[in-house]
Amino acid sequence: MNAYVYGYGPEGKERLIVVDLGVTFPDMDTTPGVDLIMADLAWLEENVDRIDAIFITHAHEDHIGALPHWWPRLRKPVYARKFTARIGTMKLEEAGHPSDTVTVVEPRPQVIEAGPFKVQFVPLSHSIPESSALLIDSPAGRVVHTGDFKLDGNPIVGEPFDPLLWHEIAHEAGGVKVLVCDSTNVFSPNPGRSEATLAEPLRDFIAAQKGMVVATTFASNIARLKTLAEAGRAAGRSVCLLGRAMKKMVAAAEETGVLTGMPGTVSPEEALEIPRENLLLLVTGSQGERRAATAQLSRGKYLGLELKSGDSFLFSSRVIPGNERPVIRIINNFSEMGVDVFDDTSGLYHVSGHANRPDLEAVHDLLRPKILIPMHGEHRHLRKHAKIARAKGIAAEVATNGTMLDLSGEAPRVVEYIEAGRTYLDGSVLIGSMDGVVRDRIRMALNGQVLITVIIDEDDQPLGEPWVEMVGLPTRGRTGMDLTKQIEEELADFLERASEKIIASDEKLDEAMRRISRQVTMEEIGKKPEVVVVVSRLMAE
Amino acid sequence: MNAYVYGYGPEGKERLIVVDLGVTFPDMDTTPGVDLIMADLAWLEENVDRIDAIFITHAHEDHIGALPHWWPRLRKPVYARKFTARIGTMKLEEAGHPSDTVTVVEPRPQVIEAGPFKVQFVPLSHSIPESSALLIDSPAGRVVHTGDFKLDGNPIVGEPFDPLLWHEIAHEAGGVKVLVCDSTNVFSPNPGRSEATLAEPLRDFIAAQKGMVVATTFASNIARLKTLAEAGRAAGRSVCLLGRAMKKMVAAAEETGVLTGMPGTVSPEEALEIPRENLLLLVTGSQGERRAATAQLSRGKYLGLELKSGDSFLFSSRVIPGNERPVIRIINNFSEMGVDVFDDTSGLYHVSGHANRPDLEAVHDLLRPKILIPMHGEHRHLRKHAKIARAKGIAAEVATNGTMLDLSGEAPRVVEYIEAGRTYLDGSVLIGSMDGVVRDRIRMALNGQVLITVIIDEDDQPLGEPWVEMVGLPTRGRTGMDLTKQIEEELADFLERASEKIIASDEKLDEAMRRISRQVTMEEIGKKPEVVVVVSRLMAE
Repeated sequence: MNAYVYGYGPEGKERLIVVDLGVTFPDMDTTPGVDLIMADLAWLEENVDRIDAIFITHAHEDHIGALPHWWPRLRKPVYARKFTARIGTMKLEEAGHPSDTVTVVEPRPQVIEAGPFKVQFVPLSHSIPESSALLIDSPAGRVVHTGDFKLDGNPIVGEPFDPLLWHEIAHEAGGVKVLVCDSTNVFSPNPGRSEATLAEPLRDFIAAQKGMVVATTFASNIARLKTLAEAGRAAGRSVCLLGRAMKKMVAAAEETGVLTGMPGTVSPEEALEIPRENLLLLVTGSQGERRAATAQLSRGKYLGLELKSGDSFLFSSRVIPGNERPVIRIINNFSEMGVDVFDDTSGLYHVSGHANRPDLEAVHDLLRPKILIPMHGEHRHLRKHAKIARAKGIAAEVATNGTMLDLSGEAPRVVEYIEAGRTYLDGSVLIGSMDGVVRDRIRMALNGQVLITVIIDEDDQPLGEPWVEMVGLPTRGRTGMDLTKQIEEELADFLERASEKIIASDEKLDEAMRRISRQVTMEEIGKKPEVVVVVSRLMAE
Repeated sequence: MNAYVYGYGPEGKERLIVVDLGVTFPDMDTTPGVDLIMADLAWLEENVDRIDAIFITHAHEDHIGALPHWWPRLRKPVYARKFTARIGTMKLEEAGHPSDTVTVVEPRPQVIEAGPFKVQFVPLSHSIPESSALLIDSPAGRVVHTGDFKLDGNPIVGEPFDPLLWHEIAHEAGGVKVLVCDSTNVFSPNPGRSEATLAEPLRDFIAAQKGMVVATTFASNIARLKTLAEAGRAAGRSVCLLGRAMKKMVAAAEETGVLTGMPGTVSPEEALEIPRENLLLLVTGSQGERRAATAQLSRGKYLGLELKSGDSFLFSSRVIPGNERPVIRIINNFSEMGVDVFDDTSGLYHVSGHANRPDLEAVHDLLRPKILIPMHGEHRHLRKHAKIARAKGIAAEVATNGTMLDLSGEAPRVVEYIEAGRTYLDGSVLIGSMDGVVRDRIRMALNGQVLITVIIDEDDQPLGEPWVEMVGLPTRGRTGMDLTKQIEEELADFLERASEKIIASDEKLDEAMRRISRQVTMEEIGKKPEVVVVVSRLMAE
């Protein structure tokens, strides 16, 4: 997830612009039950009066996903190119915000003035239309913020990489002072391949299949969807889009004029009437998302459509590290159905949307920045990118989350670390990652839970016996006896013998009963569960 | 995890032998809080009188890990080669079982007679010493059960692959009727490489590093440890083993004579006194296991030892699919420390322990079985392996968990599906995967929990107001009010208005209060939590 802030002005009073407001996705290991993860923008909220604008480089979730959640707290002008703006506006409208929040910007030469900054959007290719670098000029010099990019001379959809344009940018306005640069593929040693190289292999692949063909890729990879659809049509197949996200993305691309010449598609209902060997389904869920079309098809029907033995499934995508488990599960489900699964291991059916190491070096050489700040990627990617830059005599610094750099000198200088945690969207609420909510969930999941209810009467005497409920725990252990009853008996024994002082204190009762119940479970089942004790005290009326 | 059963005899009265009793490891997504996962052997327990013996092919956890948990329920003779037997005995002893449970077997020509079966252990190479195929002869013909294997002419530790021996096996006793064969690497298109090819690259790598070198691999990969230790010594470094599992494995290998010529090592205390550029640490935790040495070093000190900027960390291993997340986290931690991390992407520092596709085909051609049953691997691997066999005219069948095959005819025939689920070791208790224990944990983790306590007096009247506790839920939502209080108020309102009939029924009270509390949380925070309602009824005394 991404969120960058640039500032210019007297120390502590700099005017600010924000670049990108992205999300990342939760997992069971660290964030069970959470819906979305975004940066904690507390510092921006505190300094909201200093913010002049928000710029969105492109419409991938890790760059735009937090807009509907954070915009209401910042309420500043938002600038993006037309396709990105359309996606952003849809998100804002769904969250109930005004539809005129995002201002559509044309690419360079249009200049947006935001406080002391002059900002231009410069087209670069990526796996979504209109991904743009930002040219950020201020009295301190020119910053190129690349966003996500690759160097593609024929990206199928959108503008090709234009070396002359970048040459111009490198040579005007005193040259590029700072390059803030994508680092995702810094470990990929070979030059990146063009989106256009996929057309022929995909056409050959689809033409060679006998049954129904189903292909998945990112819903926002409009160029890939077009290439796949054209390959399907060339093989005489009707094309059907499955999955809400994909249909929305294609519609947005067509409405904004970014996508033209997309072959016509059929609806799922129409697809049901077409012989399977004449069908190509393009579906969501390349990362194994549980509710997306791919996962649903791997479990059975989706809108009446179903894979069968002899059909083919193509992942025209790569698995983002961390998503391997659900994707593997899906592949095995398809295997059990007798469906042949193809993925990107052959190198024929997917290309990355990020610049590889030689492409990054070409950009360094083209722009000749004085300073390079690597971004996008894990720490190891940033560190590697900084090393490469330094080896060329470019000053570089790895900036971890929350780092504030002074870029006005000859080399970047860390001036402050801002507390920059994570904010979770949990249901409809934003909570802090350190609030303890998720920690408690993880503990319940790992340890199970024991609930103890005890009633103390008006005379500080236990009324009846303690009541125990267990959730997520084995019911019997070592002795084979009912564990709930065992805990209840131990607690009843304890209450019988407990001093008045203990019974009078909620805290002491809680502590003792917690300890006893954990002792019993440890002996019986070898686990120390989470314990909640509810002491109800009857009051003399 | 693995567990195979072979039977011979009249239908329903076959005498049985068991091959391997393995475990697999839990994850947060599907098995939070679980310690180990093993096959549900209910069918074997029901038919325990028909079992004559248990054979263990090698000492990897997915082949031997369930032995201490299942042996007490089966109590049959266990056979293994000496290193495997030593590991098995250690596990059984730790669980309090007799130390003479496992019988040590020499490789072919020794024959173990078990009911109608004559079984020989035939050496094959793998990433652990002594991995063996089983030659299982019965009146119905010869079965070769490969276990995990690769074809390695120079495995550093243990016997090299011996084609003459296998030629002999293929040509005696009427030839091989059934090949039950490892399929793990069926998608790897190139011939596998020998363990011996790593010696030079590892020596060069370690010699080239300036700071401390830390290398991880599987604790049981004795050959790799020896190669690494020798490379360390060649570079003038003292070698230190870190991690309980690694020390145990090396000790077992030396005690059983499997490992000889291992360079001497220093203790962690001694290592602290040695300059870091003269040290090589061999550590556990190549899969990112939280408590292993690698993960601990990535978080700070381990037994006083600590990595620093300029040190090097080598993964002489590959990441098992599904373990990417913790491994990536570790690599980034090291990156933040300024440690250079190297992995197997260069192909120089790790080789697989499994036969690749050309090696598998070589085995097919050498053994010329009538029937092939693919094993080891996911469904897609088994399906691919069966396809390859069929293309050569070998009858093949994919047998999913619980499938019983008749192998006595010309082709395998499915005769029964046995309910074969999973058993979890949870703390010290074995529970069934369908018992609902883990399901409840997952629900608590995803949805959070609301606990409601209400007291009903002797006259069926609510006594005081309902009490609510929340665990793992945001405390405030849409209205900004305290959510616990809001639920309590709604429940109090409800109880005030509730009919006697409802209040008299635990079930109706439970249902209504559950519904109300979920309504409130849904409105306030957009989540429907798990709810536990405890109704305490005071009895007239």
